[in-house]
Amino acid sequence: MTLNAVSAVPKRLATLALHPSVWLEFTPLAAVTRSVNLGQGFPDWEPPSFVLQAAARAAAQPAATVQQYARSRGHPQLAQVICEVYGKRRFGGRVLNPQENVLVTNGASGAIYLALVSLVDEGDEVLLVEPAFDIYFGAVKMAGGTAKHVPLRPRYPQAQSAADLELDDAALEAAITPRTRVLLLNTPHNPTGKVMTRDELEAVAAVIRRYPQVTVVSDEVYEHLVYDGARHVSMASLPGMFERCLSIFSAGKTFSVTGWKIGWVIGGAALVQRLHNAQQFVVFSVCTPMQAAVAECLEHAERTDYYAQLARRMQHRRDQLLKALRAAHLQPLVPQGGYFVVADGAALPACRHEFPEGMQQLLQEQQRSGNAHGLEVDERTRHRRDYNLARWMSLQRRVTPIPLSVFYGPATADANDTWLRFAFCKRDEMLEAAAERLRQQEV
Amino acid sequence: MTLNAVSAVPKRLATLALHPSVWLEFTPLAAVTRSVNLGQGFPDWEPPSFVLQAAARAAAQPAATVQQYARSRGHPQLAQVICEVYGKRRFGGRVLNPQENVLVTNGASGAIYLALVSLVDEGDEVLLVEPAFDIYFGAVKMAGGTAKHVPLRPRYPQAQSAADLELDDAALEAAITPRTRVLLLNTPHNPTGKVMTRDELEAVAAVIRRYPQVTVVSDEVYEHLVYDGARHVSMASLPGMFERCLSIFSAGKTFSVTGWKIGWVIGGAALVQRLHNAQQFVVFSVCTPMQAAVAECLEHAERTDYYAQLARRMQHRRDQLLKALRAAHLQPLVPQGGYFVVADGAALPACRHEFPEGMQQLLQEQQRSGNAHGLEVDERTRHRRDYNLARWMSLQRRVTPIPLSVFYGPATADANDTWLRFAFCKRDEMLEAAAERLRQQEV
Repeated sequence: MTLNAVSAVPKRLATLALHPSVWLEFTPLAAVTRSVNLGQGFPDWEPPSFVLQAAARAAAQPAATVQQYARSRGHPQLAQVICEVYGKRRFGGRVLNPQENVLVTNGASGAIYLALVSLVDEGDEVLLVEPAFDIYFGAVKMAGGTAKHVPLRPRYPQAQSAADLELDDAALEAAITPRTRVLLLNTPHNPTGKVMTRDELEAVAAVIRRYPQVTVVSDEVYEHLVYDGARHVSMASLPGMFERCLSIFSAGKTFSVTGWKIGWVIGGAALVQRLHNAQQFVVFSVCTPMQAAVAECLEHAERTDYYAQLARRMQHRRDQLLKALRAAHLQPLVPQGGYFVVADGAALPACRHEFPEGMQQLLQEQQRSGNAHGLEVDERTRHRRDYNLARWMSLQRRVTPIPLSVFYGPATADANDTWLRFAFCKRDEMLEAAAERLRQQEV
Repeated sequence: MTLNAVSAVPKRLATLALHPSVWLEFTPLAAVTRSVNLGQGFPDWEPPSFVLQAAARAAAQPAATVQQYARSRGHPQLAQVICEVYGKRRFGGRVLNPQENVLVTNGASGAIYLALVSLVDEGDEVLLVEPAFDIYFGAVKMAGGTAKHVPLRPRYPQAQSAADLELDDAALEAAITPRTRVLLLNTPHNPTGKVMTRDELEAVAAVIRRYPQVTVVSDEVYEHLVYDGARHVSMASLPGMFERCLSIFSAGKTFSVTGWKIGWVIGGAALVQRLHNAQQFVVFSVCTPMQAAVAECLEHAERTDYYAQLARRMQHRRDQLLKALRAAHLQPLVPQGGYFVVADGAALPACRHEFPEGMQQLLQEQQRSGNAHGLEVDERTRHRRDYNLARWMSLQRRVTPIPLSVFYGPATADANDTWLRFAFCKRDEMLEAAAERLRQQEV
């Protein structure tokens, strides 16, 4: 304890953002090199017109029920629609109570944060399935928790599909301690596109049922983006699991409006109540007009074949990208869901420990000219092969992926550094341009 | 540490919401008794048409820059407008940098939460000016902090105006310890309507300057709601204070859209960066179309006399309510700002330690009929005079205020229990109906 404590940063923040994030390198790098940016996962197409119309209608309504504070638990109309739709679609006809089983949140990331601060105390442990969405690491730290990693591994060396990845149930059980509070699942999975089958989920549930101290927080935001006949199954629909799970969904991925930041958590009343208690002081309530709009969108989707159309279009985009990657001698793992492809670049000469010379020049040029794009390199990543391959691709192919080691914890990142992640939630012409560029001969 | 830890609630949540909040009693009570609800502070009128139009326009725009993820720091256009407007209006022409000095948040409550988790470590202390907005207490607990109260006291016994309240600077200084991290200021003040003058702020700043470990978090959401010629001054505009302050503003109060949940923090680059780091994991980003709409609203307000008009209308409403309260033998403290009046009910016979009999009957009736409105009474408040007066007013006058002791910490709540808070952010006809009812003879 020191009097001169202006710089005293709370422990929860102390280890966050000490280094530039992957986005502070690759988003500017894509801009500077005029690359096709397949890094960040947001759709670059126009949202469907029914979605924009619902938003415009809600925004124009003068009523206090639409423009003033929503209930902290969620706009009544949206909570009601969520209960009707999800009770049927995801939880085998279970009757959900909008006053008890639902909480509307600031997007899925807001839901994950609330779940963690509501379940995890200082020093508690959270199990992440590795590779894991990078935002999870920070959220666990913010909650004072410690992340422990359970690997998602290929069943055999030359696995071609995300279906060939498996979560080792014995490793999962071995990782559980009395301090374990949360297993953070994600299916369809970012970054690999793995869609967990009912049998696979059942094997996980069989472990979890033996440890009453563990709650499953299940990030299911890509629920409608499933391909080749794969089906999304919610962990909470398995016998006895509903009261043990918080299932998280979002309008962003489903309606191509990642900027709306409307998500929802469904779960047992006691668990949801905790998140509700926390939400009152984290943000009090969530944007009312956008909640009203999402209620309309969910109703529209139920009346039409919107979800099937969306999945068909996305599967086409996936196939375009897979073809382009193979032509470029990258070895993709075919995703069954989500909007990313991971591909192994080990065969490419540019996948190496040395920082590309062109990158060094570019950094110097940017510094000299004022670095308007804010290009920054995390010095700790200069030796990472996937980072250097992604840098080379941006410089020499003008296609920007992100390195996959971002999705690994510090202990395993170096050992998993020949893979890249590419987003295919991009317009056809962008994917075509990427394919064209990837076909180029070595410069 | 216990294996059967399903019910283990993290410390930050353990003391929250163990008892029904004041809203779970008085919002249902107003509904059940068909009272004019002057409890919750949201405008019940239609937002201005330029505000609704800006929202509808933004909502209908298909561009990815409006419908997809905003930058975590804030939509560039909004951050830019905020810098231009606030640099001039509040900080004496200071040049604000949209990349460094601003963070757009999920409303002012989201900003306060981020400020606290970014500044307060487990066991640190936060100074609140008492009475204090009730959401502050919970946010301090969520951050692991301990609230310490500095009273806002009348300068003399029969004070008539919020201008006659003062913060005791010696008491403020005495409350500071090496663990003090934050002074949470609020001007214009909820609930009293006190608007701190430059001299008063300077006296506080003189204390704060001696304690470099203390950051001022200044909630200024009622900045434009000031009456009788009072002027809002930002603490951060005082010499040397900009780098020591986080100033918090919001679209909700200013544009009569509390449901949008768009707020912003302005401050020194190092402080704002901390909140930005936290925001990435609490919510990642804030609703993009509503940010675009707020940018338009701020630009519109600068071109017109919107703020002056708003203040004039609100002052008229305040005067209507003051008249009604005096006629009902309540002793109001005239607010200089904000949208609440606090009034002393000590002179009324219903201001007493005994729980009203009518309330007991009503609770039983509601229980028998299924309690559809969810009326709940916090048992610890049965003896509180202000609660019982507010209950009596709802039952016998059909006007619902909230008891002011909610705004005090546990040590001082019982000693401050003859006052009520009334909101005047209500349509003229609602205020007239309230006046009419308050004039009634004792039933």
